[in-house]
Amino acid sequence: MRKIEHIGIAVKNLETSNLIFEKLFGAPAYKQEEVESEGVKTSFFMNGPNKIELLEATNPESPIAKFIEKKGEGIHHIAFDVEDIIAEIARLQQEGFTVLNEVPKKGADNKLVAFLHPKGTNGVLVELCQEIPN
Amino acid sequence: MRKIEHIGIAVKNLETSNLIFEKLFGAPAYKQEEVESEGVKTSFFMNGPNKIELLEATNPESPIAKFIEKKGEGIHHIAFDVEDIIAEIARLQQEGFTVLNEVPKKGADNKLVAFLHPKGTNGVLVELCQEIPN
Repeated sequence: MRKIEHIGIAVKNLETSNLIFEKLFGAPAYKQEEVESEGVKTSFFMNGPNKIELLEATNPESPIAKFIEKKGEGIHHIAFDVEDIIAEIARLQQEGFTVLNEVPKKGADNKLVAFLHPKGTNGVLVELCQEIPN
Repeated sequence: MRKIEHIGIAVKNLETSNLIFEKLFGAPAYKQEEVESEGVKTSFFMNGPNKIELLEATNPESPIAKFIEKKGEGIHHIAFDVEDIIAEIARLQQEGFTVLNEVPKKGADNKLVAFLHPKGTNGVLVELCQEIPN
């Protein structure tokens, strides 16, 4: 784990929230992207070495829709940048963490991603992500 | 806002959670500190340019105790590193954000801190923090 790659924030309306975070950072989102398999549309803001990802559900079955229903808008996950996601999954399983998807899947922003079960991390949804090489 | 300085995570038991996050990062907390005025004891983990702060309430009136009562353990706030907290507070107020304490206060880890009201930031508790010069 080399740094916080991004923080994911669940929002009800991406357009409205884009304006809020543009004011917060003093710069607009550098990217918008829909991840159909996850039922989300996202926007990304740069903040030095880190990013903020806003997530809006595109259907009621989306994990983001369910999160907002249960907890309201707010911070949804922390993603850590890893060099080798396969090795990191193996290391964390050995340490006793539950990996929700043992086979990394394609996430937003050109990343391979895997999630840890929040029950093992004090309620924090942890994402591992590795840049997909060109 | 130059980077994510740290993510604050509300936990019920600091000692237990220290062991979990030590396994997650492969390294122990580099610092533990009690902030009496906030009713918390904290521990800090380094993660590249960022930090993770675990927070345990030291009394039932602590904001952390109330947060856990309402939402359970989990991510409590995002703190952004700023160069000049006074100027940043003024800028954000002008942009329409509500600053919870207009006069920065002394936080953990040798920082001056101020918080934005989460109602203006999609439910996210945003902390601004500036290192106190020696």
